[in-house]
Amino acid sequence: MKSKFIVIEGLEGAGKTTAREAIVATLRERGIQDIVFTREPGGTPLAEQLRVLVKQGIEGEQVTDKAELLMLYAARVQLVDTVIKPALARGAWVIGDRHDLSSQAYQGGGRGVDSALMRTLRDAVLGDFRPDLQLYLDVTPEIGLQRARARGELDRIEQESLRFFERTRERYLALAAEDRSILTVDATQPLASVTQAIKATLTRWLEQQA
Amino acid sequence: MKSKFIVIEGLEGAGKTTAREAIVATLRERGIQDIVFTREPGGTPLAEQLRVLVKQGIEGEQVTDKAELLMLYAARVQLVDTVIKPALARGAWVIGDRHDLSSQAYQGGGRGVDSALMRTLRDAVLGDFRPDLQLYLDVTPEIGLQRARARGELDRIEQESLRFFERTRERYLALAAEDRSILTVDATQPLASVTQAIKATLTRWLEQQA
Repeated sequence: MKSKFIVIEGLEGAGKTTAREAIVATLRERGIQDIVFTREPGGTPLAEQLRVLVKQGIEGEQVTDKAELLMLYAARVQLVDTVIKPALARGAWVIGDRHDLSSQAYQGGGRGVDSALMRTLRDAVLGDFRPDLQLYLDVTPEIGLQRARARGELDRIEQESLRFFERTRERYLALAAEDRSILTVDATQPLASVTQAIKATLTRWLEQQA
Repeated sequence: MKSKFIVIEGLEGAGKTTAREAIVATLRERGIQDIVFTREPGGTPLAEQLRVLVKQGIEGEQVTDKAELLMLYAARVQLVDTVIKPALARGAWVIGDRHDLSSQAYQGGGRGVDSALMRTLRDAVLGDFRPDLQLYLDVTPEIGLQRARARGELDRIEQESLRFFERTRERYLALAAEDRSILTVDATQPLASVTQAIKATLTRWLEQQA
């Protein structure tokens, strides 16, 4: 099978790290060993610097929505062109902790950035590069933030209002309804059930690709 | 007269700092006291952080042309929305050390980034916001780089090949030929003559605005 780019998506506290382990286990069971992990924003030294600027912001300065979006795309195109595309080209599988769908949901849905601008920017910067599969872990903001809070300090984005995360989740669900590359997993269940659901969803998808 | 956004443009070593002094002197002679200075990339704490990333790059990592361009636009929109537009709105004049024309010339001309992408990005990010006047200080790369070298260490962009700066200058000249808001000053002349030429050009322009 040709190598694939699989992305894990969802709100804070959706269980992306656990999902990654379930995906790796499923791929390894099928003999896929060459796996590259990425996270966004980040994944290259430059993109990690941009991650810090986006996540922490600047003391006393309000980062505008457009500046945030452009920093995210700068980090993304750097990661895609220098890490993801070369990995796929040599036959490695790539598992991404977030990718473009996060911007569509958080900046487009959460912040309300104009959809036309979002589309224009994505197409201009990424062309037709898209993940093969996007696993969207669906949780309510209440459950997600409770889990995120239990892990420790919240960053600039995690401190947004509950309403922000509700808008973000609504956009995730709306996009999942219209994009066949997005598969939704109910991530409000107990951990073991979520892991099972991810493995089953991924296995079914892999069999369709074969 | 309504306050204006005046931008100084040109290659490294074109004499932008001297030009700024000539512009300020000319404005003050006409009783304009409230003047805000900006530089790009930079001019806000966030944008200055992006300036460092663009100018210095990251040890061992090749910054892609698109990532560079998006960081420049992130810095630019942050500066426009939080500094330049508010200053103009309260009646201050703004003098910019570089603005969008630098991206058109350096990234579009020098690096050869696709013109359609350049236009799409500018329009999507900045809408119809444009400087009132762009003073382009025209020097050959040889003269400009000689002056820049005499000032000390060169940064990542200043270390580009002579051919890069030739392409950048060609783009500056081509854009100046088709955009009436760009006025070209021969900056190869001795300092005193350049200062005189800037004052004369600006005075003439101001009289046309009145």
